[in-house]
Amino acid sequence: MTEVDIMRTEFLANCINILGNDFVITDAADQQPYLTDWRRRFVGKALAVLLPQSTDEVASLVRLCAAHHIACVPQGGNTGLVLGSVPDQSGHAVVISLKRMNRVLAIDVANNTITVEAGCLLAQVQDTASAEQRLFPLSLASEGSCTIGGNLSTNAGGTAVLRYGNTRELCLGLEVITAQGEIWNGLRGLRKDNTGYDLRDLFIGAEGTLGIITAAVLKLFPQPRAQITAFTALESPDAALDLLKYSQDALGPTLTAFELISDFSLQLVLRHFPQLQHPFGRSYPYYALVEMSDHESESHAIALMEQVLEQAMNDGHAADAVCATSISQSKSLWKLREHISEAQAKEGKNIKHDISIPVSQIPHFIQITDAELSAAFPGCQIVCFGHMGDGNLHYNVSAPVGSSDAEFILQQTAINRIVHDNVHQFKGSISAEHGLGMLKRDEIKLYKSELELSMMRAIKVALDPQNLMNPGKVL
Amino acid sequence: MTEVDIMRTEFLANCINILGNDFVITDAADQQPYLTDWRRRFVGKALAVLLPQSTDEVASLVRLCAAHHIACVPQGGNTGLVLGSVPDQSGHAVVISLKRMNRVLAIDVANNTITVEAGCLLAQVQDTASAEQRLFPLSLASEGSCTIGGNLSTNAGGTAVLRYGNTRELCLGLEVITAQGEIWNGLRGLRKDNTGYDLRDLFIGAEGTLGIITAAVLKLFPQPRAQITAFTALESPDAALDLLKYSQDALGPTLTAFELISDFSLQLVLRHFPQLQHPFGRSYPYYALVEMSDHESESHAIALMEQVLEQAMNDGHAADAVCATSISQSKSLWKLREHISEAQAKEGKNIKHDISIPVSQIPHFIQITDAELSAAFPGCQIVCFGHMGDGNLHYNVSAPVGSSDAEFILQQTAINRIVHDNVHQFKGSISAEHGLGMLKRDEIKLYKSELELSMMRAIKVALDPQNLMNPGKVL
Repeated sequence: MTEVDIMRTEFLANCINILGNDFVITDAADQQPYLTDWRRRFVGKALAVLLPQSTDEVASLVRLCAAHHIACVPQGGNTGLVLGSVPDQSGHAVVISLKRMNRVLAIDVANNTITVEAGCLLAQVQDTASAEQRLFPLSLASEGSCTIGGNLSTNAGGTAVLRYGNTRELCLGLEVITAQGEIWNGLRGLRKDNTGYDLRDLFIGAEGTLGIITAAVLKLFPQPRAQITAFTALESPDAALDLLKYSQDALGPTLTAFELISDFSLQLVLRHFPQLQHPFGRSYPYYALVEMSDHESESHAIALMEQVLEQAMNDGHAADAVCATSISQSKSLWKLREHISEAQAKEGKNIKHDISIPVSQIPHFIQITDAELSAAFPGCQIVCFGHMGDGNLHYNVSAPVGSSDAEFILQQTAINRIVHDNVHQFKGSISAEHGLGMLKRDEIKLYKSELELSMMRAIKVALDPQNLMNPGKVL
Repeated sequence: MTEVDIMRTEFLANCINILGNDFVITDAADQQPYLTDWRRRFVGKALAVLLPQSTDEVASLVRLCAAHHIACVPQGGNTGLVLGSVPDQSGHAVVISLKRMNRVLAIDVANNTITVEAGCLLAQVQDTASAEQRLFPLSLASEGSCTIGGNLSTNAGGTAVLRYGNTRELCLGLEVITAQGEIWNGLRGLRKDNTGYDLRDLFIGAEGTLGIITAAVLKLFPQPRAQITAFTALESPDAALDLLKYSQDALGPTLTAFELISDFSLQLVLRHFPQLQHPFGRSYPYYALVEMSDHESESHAIALMEQVLEQAMNDGHAADAVCATSISQSKSLWKLREHISEAQAKEGKNIKHDISIPVSQIPHFIQITDAELSAAFPGCQIVCFGHMGDGNLHYNVSAPVGSSDAEFILQQTAINRIVHDNVHQFKGSISAEHGLGMLKRDEIKLYKSELELSMMRAIKVALDPQNLMNPGKVL
């Protein structure tokens, strides 16, 4: 055995001492799910996959890693989209999976808070809240697989941000294992606390590069008595912007979702999910799904939504509209939005962008970017949809009809440049809700100022001087 | 002249080069307003008071200070309550007042954002938003004097936090001058941006110790069509907690304020403002002011509020209730709450606490702390009121009737200890909305973990290695 081998053997023996044999995975086949990216674009390597069951075990493992100069890649549901939760291919790092730490620690209904371990599935938190007639509003496509720790580390967005904010806005307190393996108990359930620097928000969205989140206190809300969904037909993104402003003024905080869907996005869904129906007799260039949540009653909600839709049509903001009057109708309308990603996958590969720009600039951005892409890549097809109320578009680009996906994908860099340059021109973000991970770590350097990057590096060095926490991600 | 005098003369000449003669204040009398604490408890000293008018001027001044190793104390309206915005008594620092930087830079109604310089008065931002039928919801007693830069640096709270959050939650982007005098342009108007560490929230609430905020992008909201205020009579803090939960369930996000007022607090107001009237024929132990904001109509709002109050009384949550049916009635009810601080000041001195605890723990906290204080300081009078919906109480203690305020104030340390120890027991915060400044910098060491303080110090050193940004505050 070489000296390195001896060191590794000793390290793994120590891991087994902490966790027991069953929770130190070194077998290559058993490691695969933890090393493989959610979209199966990348497979990393790891010295071991470690499965702690308690905060103390995580702290012990991080101290051990620090002593051996071994990097740690924290992992939740491994559903991230930017290669943030898998190790690189060096094989020098360990994956620390939090998925066994999945206990709900406390629920305080009168304080509207729930305290959970990082490995809790998002759906589990939603369900626990719901059983107490409370709402945990974070909602994502992967909610049955993703964990709260991952949601926090990536500051996940989803469909309810318009009303409730990103994961950042839903968190009051954290427990974090520092890069030195110390336990920071910041599990506060307070709406107000001005006693020093906001460490909580520094760890949120840091993608595990500053420490490992092991537990959190999250905000709960009273459950609305009714949720009403409408689907509107629109002549243009400008009409969508008008309708959004109109809906915000009329519905105030009861407006809980405003999702833009281009006609091409809807056509993809209908092609691949023939059981779903077009909500109108004909096609329109764009659609918006509008959801309101009401604390009075379903009849009040429907009456108000119908009044809003009628006025919106009379004023020319909407070309047509339907309002779901049952839960199953509402679900059918949501499916038209939710199945876009899957429909795209069935259609073939495309080049994805998770971007945000000021809401007011969306029509102009779409107009310019559509035109530039069509000029540079004649016939390319744009799948444009997203959380318009938050200024967040999933603006994806597919190959022209009849041409090869594989060849088209080779144009990725040039296409990214057109899209991201325009995002930058409009003072937007090239990663609205997915994070940077390994995937956008270099791309961001084109757009973020050197001063901002240098402040980020200064903070990274201050908190993780050995660069052992998820190295190579974000920075 | 000594070498130090020569250096200072050269430094001041450079300041005059940057700002012109009129905006470098060295005259002691002219400096006084900038050196004197809002509550007139403390007067600091400064080498000069500097009044820049642009971001570039602030950056130039900070670079000059860095080159001369001169500390900078940034200042807005100087309305802070914890000695955060005045210099210490060494006379080595300069005050950099942002009050000439008071331009509204942009308002984007469709994006619901306003971009303002740091020296804008809070009331000016509210008014500018209002002129465009938008709401900037931050609302404080000092809104006519405090600036947005100060609000951001202290993460100010106020009366609308229950619905809209603290200043932190109302800010999307910042422009900051770093300790090195560089300009960080983070003036983004985005609801979603996951491209690295959350520097914005690090500067917010840092009380000027990490850099100087020179401008910000703030969130706006649609204006509600009606605001309805009710005043309720309660038998106990437990009843207040019941009523809060009940109101949240019934009103959802239209509940915009829930303020607790003890009978003694109300008596003080009525004693010193005899033009105000008791809302009920008799006294009750506690009261809650409840406000809802409605996007439908005034008649809808009144009907809903009356229904809520009736049900609350039927279910025993409230002993009595009145609902204002005009704007002037509503203002009168709010005055009962808003005049408490002034009534206290007229009554004499007292020992103030700005605390937060989990909302669910408020009744138990009040019960225990009232009892401990009465046992230790027989006859002491407790002025208990605050933003109950946020778990934030202003829990102030006055001398027993007939005894001297001056003597009672000498007990401050012992009284703080009882109150703050209980706050800590209940996992609360000893500074909910005012910050730490110089006033609570030592007190916080009793309650915050050494690990958390060490992370704060590491960040301070990383961003301000010379310790020139508002030294001696927070840390």
